[in-house]
Amino acid sequence: MRVEIWSDIACPWCYVGKARFEKALAAFPHRDDVEVVHRSFELDPGRAKDDIQPVLTMLSKKYGMSEAQAQAGEHNLRAQAGAEGLDYRAEGRDHGSTFDMHRLLHLAKEHGRQSELLQLMYRANFAEERSVYADADEFLIELAVEAGLDEGTARQVLADPAAYADAVREDEREAAELGANGVPFFVLDRKYGVSGAQPAEVFERALTQAWGERSPLQVIQEDTAEACGTDGCAVPSR
Amino acid sequence: MRVEIWSDIACPWCYVGKARFEKALAAFPHRDDVEVVHRSFELDPGRAKDDIQPVLTMLSKKYGMSEAQAQAGEHNLRAQAGAEGLDYRAEGRDHGSTFDMHRLLHLAKEHGRQSELLQLMYRANFAEERSVYADADEFLIELAVEAGLDEGTARQVLADPAAYADAVREDEREAAELGANGVPFFVLDRKYGVSGAQPAEVFERALTQAWGERSPLQVIQEDTAEACGTDGCAVPSR
Repeated sequence: MRVEIWSDIACPWCYVGKARFEKALAAFPHRDDVEVVHRSFELDPGRAKDDIQPVLTMLSKKYGMSEAQAQAGEHNLRAQAGAEGLDYRAEGRDHGSTFDMHRLLHLAKEHGRQSELLQLMYRANFAEERSVYADADEFLIELAVEAGLDEGTARQVLADPAAYADAVREDEREAAELGANGVPFFVLDRKYGVSGAQPAEVFERALTQAWGERSPLQVIQEDTAEACGTDGCAVPSR
Repeated sequence: MRVEIWSDIACPWCYVGKARFEKALAAFPHRDDVEVVHRSFELDPGRAKDDIQPVLTMLSKKYGMSEAQAQAGEHNLRAQAGAEGLDYRAEGRDHGSTFDMHRLLHLAKEHGRQSELLQLMYRANFAEERSVYADADEFLIELAVEAGLDEGTARQVLADPAAYADAVREDEREAAELGANGVPFFVLDRKYGVSGAQPAEVFERALTQAWGERSPLQVIQEDTAEACGTDGCAVPSR
């Protein structure tokens, strides 16, 4: 079974939702047969790489809330994160482009280190004093290496703005096709969707339901006459 | 709708099957909504990179057929390929490892050039006098550039045996899970499978059937209270 999770590093509910989903997955009897794929979704796709703002300034400018309201929201989010055992700095966080982070996450996917790198990026964004947006390249390379990626390769990906750019945009296009207009968005076997950082019990029910309904591939044409296998290729019959 | 095609560059029926499938797709009314993904399958996964043999020698040694039988098979395959408008050299082809080619195809996938590169690799393997296995790196880089990839990036991938190696093996693991023991193997929306280089009409029927049964995502939990969208993040409700 395959679970795809659309999320953004800058999305607090994605940070919380990943922890809740992983709690449900850890309790799921068939967890070893569940493949988790993280997919890209930028909440702020138009933002330039050098356009960095304090989170409170961004929230008040973009969403028209007062800085006090924004600050209260951050404190509430810290409480929610804390309930999942996650650190969260309610004050002093930055906001910026996450495009390069998504590109690196696609590199990590090719090396089986995607979930690890995403977790490190969340921690960097939500829990560390050092900004993941200012002097981003060096910080992101440190995270990539910590996640087990090769430093030179990570550096090449960051230096080439086209590397994995199509992969990020393709993920975002698929999210739109699937009807996701917010994140986190969980898709189980392309059959069921779960929107938002739901409680672990909701994920447990979704996993159980999708597992129960998974079906083997229906082979439309069994005649494998014109095919090659490890024991050779069929001789043409026509 | 998504069609995944497992194949190997060294597989004559994959070369023929790709043409037959593409003929069916070109005639399919919803072709612009069909995403095609090529996946890796090595017919000879244990072969070392420098272990290159004439195809006829490989066929007679590995499958116990006489060289005359093997030669007759190649001539039959040339006729089948010719019927699809494909060139095929029935004599003098080489056989070798396709692992590096599959790694390059994963690079091409990230840049949206996978189908083009696979077609060029097939042409190189089946129709050109120059061996795609001897002096492979330089030939493969030429093909990658012809397919629209950056030369330096392709060179880096070839130079690093770990690049996309996991992606190749993951594709092969999935093929085994789906029950594919030969190629080409076509999977439509992970629901229907078509094995072998079937006639275009079989692919047309499969596309029509899978299209008619595609279903929108069933959203288990609509409550998006704890999510972030482009218009901001929800304030915690708990």
